[in-house]
Amino acid sequence: MGREHIVDLGRRAKAASRVLAGADGAAKNGALLVAADLLEERGADLLEHNAADLERARAGDAADVALDRLRLTAERVGAMADSLRQVAALGDPVGEVVEGWVRPNGLRVQRVRVPLGVVGVIYENRPNVTSDAAGLCLKAGNATMLRGSSSAAASNAAIVGCLREALAKVGLPEDGVVNVADTSHEAAVAFMQLNGMIDCLVPRGGHSLIASVREHATVPYVIDGDGNCHVYVDAGADLDMALSIVVNAKTQRPGVCNAAESLVVHEAVAGEFLPRLGEALSGVELRGDGASRALLPAMAVATEDDFGAEFLGPIMSVVVVADLDGAIDHITRYGSGHSEAIVTNDLGASERFCREVDAAAVVVNASTRFIDGGELGLGSEIGISTQKLHARGPMGLRELTCVKYVVRGNGQVRR
Amino acid sequence: MGREHIVDLGRRAKAASRVLAGADGAAKNGALLVAADLLEERGADLLEHNAADLERARAGDAADVALDRLRLTAERVGAMADSLRQVAALGDPVGEVVEGWVRPNGLRVQRVRVPLGVVGVIYENRPNVTSDAAGLCLKAGNATMLRGSSSAAASNAAIVGCLREALAKVGLPEDGVVNVADTSHEAAVAFMQLNGMIDCLVPRGGHSLIASVREHATVPYVIDGDGNCHVYVDAGADLDMALSIVVNAKTQRPGVCNAAESLVVHEAVAGEFLPRLGEALSGVELRGDGASRALLPAMAVATEDDFGAEFLGPIMSVVVVADLDGAIDHITRYGSGHSEAIVTNDLGASERFCREVDAAAVVVNASTRFIDGGELGLGSEIGISTQKLHARGPMGLRELTCVKYVVRGNGQVRR
Repeated sequence: MGREHIVDLGRRAKAASRVLAGADGAAKNGALLVAADLLEERGADLLEHNAADLERARAGDAADVALDRLRLTAERVGAMADSLRQVAALGDPVGEVVEGWVRPNGLRVQRVRVPLGVVGVIYENRPNVTSDAAGLCLKAGNATMLRGSSSAAASNAAIVGCLREALAKVGLPEDGVVNVADTSHEAAVAFMQLNGMIDCLVPRGGHSLIASVREHATVPYVIDGDGNCHVYVDAGADLDMALSIVVNAKTQRPGVCNAAESLVVHEAVAGEFLPRLGEALSGVELRGDGASRALLPAMAVATEDDFGAEFLGPIMSVVVVADLDGAIDHITRYGSGHSEAIVTNDLGASERFCREVDAAAVVVNASTRFIDGGELGLGSEIGISTQKLHARGPMGLRELTCVKYVVRGNGQVRR
Repeated sequence: MGREHIVDLGRRAKAASRVLAGADGAAKNGALLVAADLLEERGADLLEHNAADLERARAGDAADVALDRLRLTAERVGAMADSLRQVAALGDPVGEVVEGWVRPNGLRVQRVRVPLGVVGVIYENRPNVTSDAAGLCLKAGNATMLRGSSSAAASNAAIVGCLREALAKVGLPEDGVVNVADTSHEAAVAFMQLNGMIDCLVPRGGHSLIASVREHATVPYVIDGDGNCHVYVDAGADLDMALSIVVNAKTQRPGVCNAAESLVVHEAVAGEFLPRLGEALSGVELRGDGASRALLPAMAVATEDDFGAEFLGPIMSVVVVADLDGAIDHITRYGSGHSEAIVTNDLGASERFCREVDAAAVVVNASTRFIDGGELGLGSEIGISTQKLHARGPMGLRELTCVKYVVRGNGQVRR
């Protein structure tokens, strides 16, 4: 379809974004609720399109885990619809006066929350991202340009069809959600270079997608990066609490970015803690440094790569450190800037950890699994940013907006 | 010097940034004040280095305007020192608790303002940018990597020398300010690709620099873009006020990004307004569309390029529109998203203009020249962002920071 077709889609999304930016909350919520109903009404149709995607994937020898990510079920479609309904129930971020003041010359200055414009989402094979992302973007007054993977092409097109129909039904422009059906690499590059059309690009996917965005994107983007999250068990930790937090952070849902991948233990408590942990995490392969293996010889040997890895599964790296400085150094060296936890009852240690560990979130005496838009009370999220600009940590509705200066005077000129 | 040398500088800046992030406000302010004194004490030395730069520039046939931008004088060095003292007097943004709340499970959530880490500044030939940028970055707790132009190499090196000496004198790491002395294109590209070292890149310069950043940068950046600012004189305008605002926005300092470049006039008042304007702006070349030239035949013909141009001098494009929609359409088509003003006493028109014009700042009944960090009350600024992510409009100290989640619990785990 070529670059021109993608530029044309970009122009249409941009034009639609101007209408959506001024749309009432009632209209946006109406579209979300209609879309939710349509997803459920068209459930059989969606599953049929999804079955075609699954068949192609199977013919291409896709792994079971990839097939599971791709698969829609009636229950999953229901969850997509419910997610849109939940977004409709959230407060509207647009129009919030973030702050305001009056200058000595009488100028009244306000910073007002406004939509970004067009949000581009480039993502891998979970079809639910299609409706989740577009729903959040719409609620924040943005048009959405979606570019999913070839594996989910039929499912994504069917879901976008429901969203566009919903927009039209409430009188909003259907180009408020557009789908880039061309899943070639060239199309992805053209998409990442829609300057003047895409105001913010959000990539959702693995290393190679993120690397491609860094290499090719010329539009502004926010990276939803890896989570190599650590739990540090300090000398001052309550070891029962530490055990419960490490087990939860590692095993409650190992395949997500805020699960813990790495354990750091103060040497003063390692002798007591590691054997207890070995028992509690019997289903997890622990890979340790020399000091930790001396205390728990059953552990495998950790390589340098293990300390930096996001396993997303039942593996955890372990290191014993001499003190808090050693823990902070280890986390600084290997961490990915996502979520880092300390377990301690030592106030000084907790304060230093919070101040000196450079991450989107630092956590004291709780599981890293709480660093998530829903758990922190932001409502839904479009991803978790591990970069520092614009958004850091869970990206909710507010992170899908920006702020505009509105300055009102009565004839002021500058001297 | 090659890429490895630049990577080494990046590592040193990153290490220094960890110390600066935890530095007391008193230490940072001390360094700023010492640096201000050193700049003045070393004034003669700075001027000597600057003279060498000027001589090379003259030998290379630099234009007068370029020589003026490059030139330091005792007065300009004094202004650089005073600017550092003013930054020292501003409040410290680091550590501000931006917001906080408690979750139903007892988790206490805070968003705390923290430094970005390392700010990279790539800029063209004004040497004062060296101290201005590094001073602001330091106050916000960041290390600064500076990469100025070859034309100002000797001046920049001398200024950075003062800043580094000041850091060392107060016990802060001198690598808190590092200078990339290699002014080759290859060095610029390597600089823009210091992932994991530069947390935020701020380019300060013209089109070609911005284009190069968009093409090569793989680190996050904030664009300080063009200002094609419009003043729209509505049917409901007080024409005396409109005249005074247009004259001020165009002529008070024509060479800066918040000066007006384009005038849009409602047809109902154009017949009265344009002849008055022609007289008041007698030193400015007006370039108009057909409708405006019919009312003021002395005007030159505006080309399509004129409507999109940032003249930065005594030229202004003029267009007559049928209504507010025509004005908003014209600004949407040709504006650069910087600062856009309306002059009107019509409440509905002012509200629609504020809502529908997509720019960093919209201004009602005042000059566009107020869209500046100092004039809006933000203190000093490192630039004016025309992008939407992270910072929009003047970038002050706050825009040189980011926010970290700090979550405190007492053993919470996720169910």
